Amino acid sequence: MTTAPFDFTPLLPAGLPSAASRWTGRPKYDFTGGNNDPDALPLDGLVAAADAVLRREGRTLSTYGLDSGPQGYRALRDFLAVKLKRDAGMNCSADDILITSGSLQGLDLVNHTLLERGDTVLIEEDCYQGSINRLLRLGVTPVGIPLDREGMRIDALEAALAGLKAKGLRPKYIYTIPTVQNPSATVMPLARRTALLKLAADFGVPVFEDDCYADLTWSGHRPPALYGLSDHGNVIYIGSFSKTIAPALRVGYLVAPWSVMSRMLAIKTDAGSGALEQMVLAEYCTAHFTRHLPLLRKALRAKAVTLMESLREDFGAAAEFDDPQGGIFLWVKLSDGVDALKLYKAARGADVAINPGPEWSVNGAHARSRLRLCFANLSHEEINQGVAALAEVCRKEFGVPG
Amino acid sequence: MTTAPFDFTPLLPAGLPSAASRWTGRPKYDFTGGNNDPDALPLDGLVAAADAVLRREGRTLSTYGLDSGPQGYRALRDFLAVKLKRDAGMNCSADDILITSGSLQGLDLVNHTLLERGDTVLIEEDCYQGSINRLLRLGVTPVGIPLDREGMRIDALEAALAGLKAKGLRPKYIYTIPTVQNPSATVMPLARRTALLKLAADFGVPVFEDDCYADLTWSGHRPPALYGLSDHGNVIYIGSFSKTIAPALRVGYLVAPWSVMSRMLAIKTDAGSGALEQMVLAEYCTAHFTRHLPLLRKALRAKAVTLMESLREDFGAAAEFDDPQGGIFLWVKLSDGVDALKLYKAARGADVAINPGPEWSVNGAHARSRLRLCFANLSHEEINQGVAALAEVCRKEFGVPG
Repeated sequence: MTTAPFDFTPLLPAGLPSAASRWTGRPKYDFTGGNNDPDALPLDGLVAAADAVLRREGRTLSTYGLDSGPQGYRALRDFLAVKLKRDAGMNCSADDILITSGSLQGLDLVNHTLLERGDTVLIEEDCYQGSINRLLRLGVTPVGIPLDREGMRIDALEAALAGLKAKGLRPKYIYTIPTVQNPSATVMPLARRTALLKLAADFGVPVFEDDCYADLTWSGHRPPALYGLSDHGNVIYIGSFSKTIAPALRVGYLVAPWSVMSRMLAIKTDAGSGALEQMVLAEYCTAHFTRHLPLLRKALRAKAVTLMESLREDFGAAAEFDDPQGGIFLWVKLSDGVDALKLYKAARGADVAINPGPEWSVNGAHARSRLRLCFANLSHEEINQGVAALAEVCRKEFGVPG
Repeated sequence: MTTAPFDFTPLLPAGLPSAASRWTGRPKYDFTGGNNDPDALPLDGLVAAADAVLRREGRTLSTYGLDSGPQGYRALRDFLAVKLKRDAGMNCSADDILITSGSLQGLDLVNHTLLERGDTVLIEEDCYQGSINRLLRLGVTPVGIPLDREGMRIDALEAALAGLKAKGLRPKYIYTIPTVQNPSATVMPLARRTALLKLAADFGVPVFEDDCYADLTWSGHRPPALYGLSDHGNVIYIGSFSKTIAPALRVGYLVAPWSVMSRMLAIKTDAGSGALEQMVLAEYCTAHFTRHLPLLRKALRAKAVTLMESLREDFGAAAEFDDPQGGIFLWVKLSDGVDALKLYKAARGADVAINPGPEWSVNGAHARSRLRLCFANLSHEEINQGVAALAEVCRKEFGVPG
């Protein structure tokens, strides 16, 4: 007997996002997503680490949490405590660190612990799409703070804080990616970090610091994290191995005072994050992280240069951008006539994928002709060809470049 | 300058669960949690699988989703399509399967897609704590359906459905663990499965089938899954590798019609589940799963027997239980005078952890003197010693056993 398929539609609550489409594969020239350089993946090291750690400790996989408890594999937290002290000036111990399933779970844990419908948060005007979308889905208002070449503008932040205070509103946090900001790739200097923290303290608003790209400055140096500069525990910090080792591993980390960490742990009801990935990362990174990073940075820098050269060649003056200070993406401003959302759609026809600016900003007008181009996953040749293909589409659609 | 630590309390929304306590390690005799038998973990096979799959395909780790798209690693979904057809009578392809971060993420995806505050669902009266707690946190009413030795009672299910219909209420789903029910370890026979599906169809209520323990029947045989028996796509199915391979891996799977799968995919905003674990599982299971399972079942059965013998020896007639049909836990009824919640607290002092019945039931009175004892992770000797220690505590607290 065949009956009509069951109709789930009447059972769905209001406000669900639209249905996903079937996945049809990646486009040939994919300038989107945080994918990394496959040639810079430390594959031999990961293979050796997997072998060593599994033979030594694999039996603990039969236990949820690997005998390390709900905050994650102890050896990985020990590595992170050392790394965060050395690289980011953070004084924290393994007990202050929670391993998460990617930094995205960290975003969710912070949001679900602090936010409710109707809340307001401050956020860099051009910002990571995943952070913006999460806020909108929760019914939270993201107030955008404009950026300049040193990151979030402190005068604008102060004005926004004062304006909200005048209205009796206390924002739930100031969200910032101070080190290799996404998408602008700026690095906030020390003086501005201090000023930001002073404003946060004065207005009684905590800081939510997203440090996912901080290991990828070209120089290998970076100012201390806000978490490390604060002296009264008002910063929640997240980081990730996605950009330094491999995005598919889905391992991130969260550092926070116990008063709020203990609330986040209570809503982390996933029975722990993936143990095998934590074990392999701890084993590999404890021995090799500091040797791996310079090779990765060098590979990424070379691709950033290739992308900038391709843009100059194919777009000329129609594409403006600052030389990024690190990372895996370039934030590009095209001529005012270009509608990046339309360009995004037209480019798909040429097998080119880009991130249109309005999806990476809370200010649609400001971002209208901007786009984010990720360069890590493509080869140098693909970058050249992809930019040429994009220029051709853009010329056909908008007469730009002329 | 030292300032007072920042106070997050005024920023927390109402309704958050209580703060978590610091983890202080596992008790000596831990009869809780879905931990598995460390001696039955196929460690050599997993080590070899990790080596082989990483050397062959490791470069894809540099890409979110491993070039397999958002539904998860293709080779693992291909394995599952074959396995689910062979073992559970399910006709599904890789396109119908979503890999999740443990079956717990599957629970969350189903709940967040179908439920909203004020909804009602039907659920086995004694049931997995994680499922009950998720419903309560969402403000959803779980209506408990009593169990007998064949699982959820169909007469009671029909009465509940009719009663709700009379009140104008359409429950969002019927949640059931039909094969090795948690905690009763019953297996629902085929005839009752057919009857359950007929009721679900008649009342227009979908079925949510949790099949996490189904590979662990002692016989190695099990009736077809409800998903496989339904002919009009009203069943959502979840499964897991936690009980068959290793709980710390955090890999589960969800099978559902595209009409509802596409809505769940839209809220799975985690950039994919852990790739390394998916790759290792696919590599190992495709070659070895069917050879591994009988060894695991045999080890678990032996421990179940040890636990039942220990209980008979130390509790005598004060402990009643049915011989479980599979799995990793035993559902025990102690004499009426025993308050399982009090026993749970007292036992902690003797380094024994148990799951008190009221936490595994929506009927506190019915479950008052019951407890769930997980036996997979302890050695035979630890089972003997742990039960003896528990009996001593119980005697001191309640005069039971006499």
